[in-house]
Amino acid sequence: MIDMQNKHDHRNLDIDKAGVKDILYPIRVLAKNGGMQHTVAKINMYVDLPRHFKGTHMSRFVEILHEYRGDMSIRTFSRILDDMVERLDAQSAHIEVAFPYFIEKAAPVTGTPGMMEYACRFICSKKGEKDFRVEITAPVTTLCPCSREISTKGAHNQRGRVTITLRFKRFFWIEDIIHLIESSASAEVYSVLKRPDEKYLTEQAYANPMFVEDVVRTAAQKLEQMKDFSWYAVEAENFESIHNHSAYAYIEKKVTATGEQRDKGTPEER
Amino acid sequence: MIDMQNKHDHRNLDIDKAGVKDILYPIRVLAKNGGMQHTVAKINMYVDLPRHFKGTHMSRFVEILHEYRGDMSIRTFSRILDDMVERLDAQSAHIEVAFPYFIEKAAPVTGTPGMMEYACRFICSKKGEKDFRVEITAPVTTLCPCSREISTKGAHNQRGRVTITLRFKRFFWIEDIIHLIESSASAEVYSVLKRPDEKYLTEQAYANPMFVEDVVRTAAQKLEQMKDFSWYAVEAENFESIHNHSAYAYIEKKVTATGEQRDKGTPEER
Amino acid sequence: MIDMQNKHDHRNLDIDKAGVKDILYPIRVLAKNGGMQHTVAKINMYVDLPRHFKGTHMSRFVEILHEYRGDMSIRTFSRILDDMVERLDAQSAHIEVAFPYFIEKAAPVTGTPGMMEYACRFICSKKGEKDFRVEITAPVTTLCPCSREISTKGAHNQRGRVTITLRFKRFFWIEDIIHLIESSASAEVYSVLKRPDEKYLTEQAYANPMFVEDVVRTAAQKLEQMKDFSWYAVEAENFESIHNHSAYAYIEKKVTATGEQRDKGTPEER
Amino acid sequence: MIDMQNKHDHRNLDIDKAGVKDILYPIRVLAKNGGMQHTVAKINMYVDLPRHFKGTHMSRFVEILHEYRGDMSIRTFSRILDDMVERLDAQSAHIEVAFPYFIEKAAPVTGTPGMMEYACRFICSKKGEKDFRVEITAPVTTLCPCSREISTKGAHNQRGRVTITLRFKRFFWIEDIIHLIESSASAEVYSVLKRPDEKYLTEQAYANPMFVEDVVRTAAQKLEQMKDFSWYAVEAENFESIHNHSAYAYIEKKVTATGEQRDKGTPEER
Repeated sequence: MIDMQNKHDHRNLDIDKAGVKDILYPIRVLAKNGGMQHTVAKINMYVDLPRHFKGTHMSRFVEILHEYRGDMSIRTFSRILDDMVERLDAQSAHIEVAFPYFIEKAAPVTGTPGMMEYACRFICSKKGEKDFRVEITAPVTTLCPCSREISTKGAHNQRGRVTITLRFKRFFWIEDIIHLIESSASAEVYSVLKRPDEKYLTEQAYANPMFVEDVVRTAAQKLEQMKDFSWYAVEAENFESIHNHSAYAYIEKKVTATGEQRDKGTPEER
Repeated sequence: MIDMQNKHDHRNLDIDKAGVKDILYPIRVLAKNGGMQHTVAKINMYVDLPRHFKGTHMSRFVEILHEYRGDMSIRTFSRILDDMVERLDAQSAHIEVAFPYFIEKAAPVTGTPGMMEYACRFICSKKGEKDFRVEITAPVTTLCPCSREISTKGAHNQRGRVTITLRFKRFFWIEDIIHLIESSASAEVYSVLKRPDEKYLTEQAYANPMFVEDVVRTAAQKLEQMKDFSWYAVEAENFESIHNHSAYAYIEKKVTATGEQRDKGTPEER
Repeated sequence: MIDMQNKHDHRNLDIDKAGVKDILYPIRVLAKNGGMQHTVAKINMYVDLPRHFKGTHMSRFVEILHEYRGDMSIRTFSRILDDMVERLDAQSAHIEVAFPYFIEKAAPVTGTPGMMEYACRFICSKKGEKDFRVEITAPVTTLCPCSREISTKGAHNQRGRVTITLRFKRFFWIEDIIHLIESSASAEVYSVLKRPDEKYLTEQAYANPMFVEDVVRTAAQKLEQMKDFSWYAVEAENFESIHNHSAYAYIEKKVTATGEQRDKGTPEER
Repeated sequence: MIDMQNKHDHRNLDIDKAGVKDILYPIRVLAKNGGMQHTVAKINMYVDLPRHFKGTHMSRFVEILHEYRGDMSIRTFSRILDDMVERLDAQSAHIEVAFPYFIEKAAPVTGTPGMMEYACRFICSKKGEKDFRVEITAPVTTLCPCSREISTKGAHNQRGRVTITLRFKRFFWIEDIIHLIESSASAEVYSVLKRPDEKYLTEQAYANPMFVEDVVRTAAQKLEQMKDFSWYAVEAENFESIHNHSAYAYIEKKVTATGEQRDKGTPEER
């Protein structure tokens, strides 16, 4: 049977990424509590395609994914990238794996348990050296400092969403970054709250007003103190209760070996 | 050229709906200020298909849509349904047209103008008699009565979304239903607010705490007083600021000629 | 601490549904292979609220969900509905649970395995008697009979999506309905295909042209032969390769004890 | 009234972007036929925030948007960026405007007219010098060369979506890039097709098989011949008819003054 993909292409154009996109797959990831968490991931996998080949072999991506689905971690992503390069005769490889991650969380006063969902994404590539980014999103409550200051009673507040993206120098747990985010806003969000919990959080948020700008700065300060990351980006979005759009803030920074900030740099520049 | 669609089908099964789905089209709708508003609609159009035909003629739906796109209103929807039945040799016809509708709205204190977007949907069908439903969604602010009552300071609040669906006995303006929704919550939502406006709305919401349950009851009461509708449904959803999920409430009711409520009835029962 | 929700409401309006919406939760469901499948569900839970109560107790829904998350099936949904009615002092209860369901599927010629994702949804309610609907969506390939007939070579084809919703009289497996759907189109869809598989499916689809109308009729016929269902709806949508919109067809039917069709009836009419 | 946003912040952290996100607004854009096209845009607007300020003034973004909504073009985006920098006391500004753009398109044989929708996005920033990117997405048909080659009859084909992003040296029309995309695939997509049109397109696609890799290379070659662009990216995605996921390819390139390609460079590197 003819292999059309292996045919020669005469257009003299390298392709940066060719592969499969938006495939849904059941995967397992390692949790801080020691077990493997089952979840469902949306996955993209690409390799480069040199100018003399007509097409890539799409089925091989899914074959690789099928092998590794039972244990997805930074360590296996590294092996997946190696396998992609080898089995697809490529020079670079790229994989993105996005999934909901669940943690049981107890209400702050009554301790009532509920599962909280956090969005995670791994963005891994190999082009010469390997590069791993981890993206973690957690919901928070923010209470507006301006509204509180100018109003005789109350203050508008809302659900927000904070995303931290990291390049790391040392191993870290997703759980620790989630905790960092949740402690960088006016109050935390829970799946179950009884009345004593609701009172506690309402008062905590009122005592701790924060703009989206405050949230990204607070989270960025904590990331710098951890000294575990060579690059980070922090993004906060408020689903404003007084508007039909969001308020938004974003900081990103490359961190030098001495812990000082240097110039900016997008992930792609490395 | 053979007409496959007109071929005979032997499976003896009528099809309830056959047609086109999720087509995006630029349309114009009549606004209360007298002008025609340009907007973009997502549209579904279906007819029934008797058991002896193999297929419907999909291109005719879009031809009809193309003709009527410049003036979409209850009056033209009625004509569209007639045309669909005739040109597709059908006995029933169904069209759904969903679009964002914009109104310029001034901030409550400073009067600063901004455009507000509301989601509208017309659901029209002809099966023997004609049936028209109009669905209008507006964003609102809700402030939690429980949180306010039990907390020493502040109260959690959030953006919510209220949807009213109507079968009407008399003509009405979309603008009037939007106003009804916006006056049935703790406070209104705006696209531009200066500080005096923000103070006003924060205090208004605090003075006017409402659960989702309060919102649907308040809106339902106002709808019943208008006596213009033979059936209504009111749905409220709060994007809770203390949770990562929504609080939700729903009322629907058939209204008798005397204005009293009678038994329940979904749209499909009529 | 005051219970605002229990306060008296004077507006004299019953609320049909009050509860929580769009909560993401990890659940486990029974699979035909005997094991429990871990997946992630989006869930809505509502009860009615009599006119004399101001609000429902939102936290109790999530407490119930948390208890039952490890084993979700028709049997447990029945118990969940009972619990909701009891613990929320309600007369009716409603739960919707939507989740991706995965099945390992071998390519048709080479047998290469891959995971396929199918969308499932349970819609369960108790209002006097209990009512359970199961909704299953599977992707398929459809090849246009008209295009094939009129063209000298080739025929346009595309991915489609078929959804079957059922009320059942006897237990059935999700897997069996998925198989029914996949055998009602021009060809099946797979996650991994090698070249011999691709040749097989291309030729199979060409040999088996079907409109969306053919797909819903074929699936409906098979459902009627199974005699396990008291009501069904079949919906097919083609993501047309020659258009930027979908072709769509829909059949629904109430089935009498003798297996004959009687008059139509939407779920809500029962 | 206190201006909380102007208060001093002591954390010593600049914020890269602060502003409003996901605001829906009615806008008008210049069309090649000379008229102004009304459409609906989703808009993000950000400025930087120096380390000594606590917050930005969110309402000013929407005031600026409200002024310019009637005529949005590269020329006005340039003025919007200047206004943002000035009215928000910032050093950099960023605006993203995404909208559906409609063109009336005649079926290839019968000439039957229908409106086609294309997705457009402007991404404009000022940070020292100004940078403008235009992103245009059009649907296409792709027919698989491998499937055609190995099968005795037929070939799988599907709807695809091609996105071109450009930095330009000279003015160009959106219409011209749409035409470039539509002529880089197996066949074009239409909103209305009669049977002679369907025959024509089926045969055209069969005669012109293309992988996603072929599509991005063909489009890239055409862009290079135009010599109007200093940088481009071409992305193609096939909604595979035999899979439940997409095939994907991506090329990007910086173009030197002499028209040759030099090294790669992401937008952010400039």
